[in-house]
Amino acid sequence: MQPQIEFWYEFSSTYSYLAAMRIDQVANRAGVDVRWRPFLLGPIFKAQGYSDSPYNLFPVKGRYMWRDLERLCAKQRLPLLRPETFPQNGVQAARCALVCFSLGYGRRFSRAVFSLEFGAGRDIADEATLREAVKKAGGDPDMVLERAGSQEIKDRLREQTAEAEERGLFGAPSFIASGELFWGNDRLDEALAWAKGERAYLPNEEDPYAPNTGY
Amino acid sequence: MQPQIEFWYEFSSTYSYLAAMRIDQVANRAGVDVRWRPFLLGPIFKAQGYSDSPYNLFPVKGRYMWRDLERLCAKQRLPLLRPETFPQNGVQAARCALVCFSLGYGRRFSRAVFSLEFGAGRDIADEATLREAVKKAGGDPDMVLERAGSQEIKDRLREQTAEAEERGLFGAPSFIASGELFWGNDRLDEALAWAKGERAYLPNEEDPYAPNTGY
Repeated sequence: MQPQIEFWYEFSSTYSYLAAMRIDQVANRAGVDVRWRPFLLGPIFKAQGYSDSPYNLFPVKGRYMWRDLERLCAKQRLPLLRPETFPQNGVQAARCALVCFSLGYGRRFSRAVFSLEFGAGRDIADEATLREAVKKAGGDPDMVLERAGSQEIKDRLREQTAEAEERGLFGAPSFIASGELFWGNDRLDEALAWAKGERAYLPNEEDPYAPNTGY
Repeated sequence: MQPQIEFWYEFSSTYSYLAAMRIDQVANRAGVDVRWRPFLLGPIFKAQGYSDSPYNLFPVKGRYMWRDLERLCAKQRLPLLRPETFPQNGVQAARCALVCFSLGYGRRFSRAVFSLEFGAGRDIADEATLREAVKKAGGDPDMVLERAGSQEIKDRLREQTAEAEERGLFGAPSFIASGELFWGNDRLDEALAWAKGERAYLPNEEDPYAPNTGY
């Protein structure tokens, strides 16, 4: 069986954009499968006591983030057009994504949403944007939007977000490889290596990754 | 003239440990000079409204950080022994560092402090630890400790911390290359490349790094 990682992402997250646009290619090169898992960061931030994105609550950090994103997009050859609203409401996009995954084009839809949002500055809370993303993914906008409004899909997104919180996720993107959590686009390579069983050991310990090391 | 980066670090910061133990070697290989600049993160966190390290305020993030550090130390072949107190009070260590830099062994002293703190779990607010670090650096503990208590050194550290805040630093380690800020041990390579004039450009802009792009 091919090694696998889970890719947890949130549509309002800038660094999730970077990860989403490269993960399949990078993982394929590494021989690792990717399971895409959209979730909502809002409820998790709220549970931590944040009323808004930390990038808005701490403007110095926010200014840095946009500049960092600019540099990283340039490096990755991705377009960047900062949307007027940040963070955007990604609830509807996440629901549509769950529908699209059930229809076989969830990745294409997700990448289309991110491209419209951060590459073209579009509002992903706007139904027209989501329709366009479904079309770009080769799907039927009417059907996807209708199913996205169903109780079943709403519940599934709520469950997926609850699972994220239970498993210790506190930011996006995050990767899980063999039960190990990696946070941030910067940790994609480490997660892929971990999935393949590659480990380094601390010089002062025999097996630092044994359970209950106290860390 | 050789390109240069500034290395801003805080003695209580775990990721500053990782950066401090590798920066000279990595920068030397890249042909870039490093200017080491210790500062205090406490006053900057306080100005942001944090009463403690975010890793303590958000325990889920804190648990992740220690695990991440464990993995990264293993990769970097660095010992890791988590100190009882976190974050530690690094004021006295930073003052001593300024004295040691004026005497020509500030880097050796700084690395010794980090090694004792995170490699051996020692308390850097304890004078005995600082004396040991000065000795490891080849210096005279009595003289360094005495000078570290002078008004001149106290003022210099306060000024250095004020400069960090003015220049937009909000975390440690940070690197500044040709006026450009890079945050986090993960951005060392990017900072070195920037110092050497290596730039990537956004596909949708002619020169995204021109001033006043709005980001």
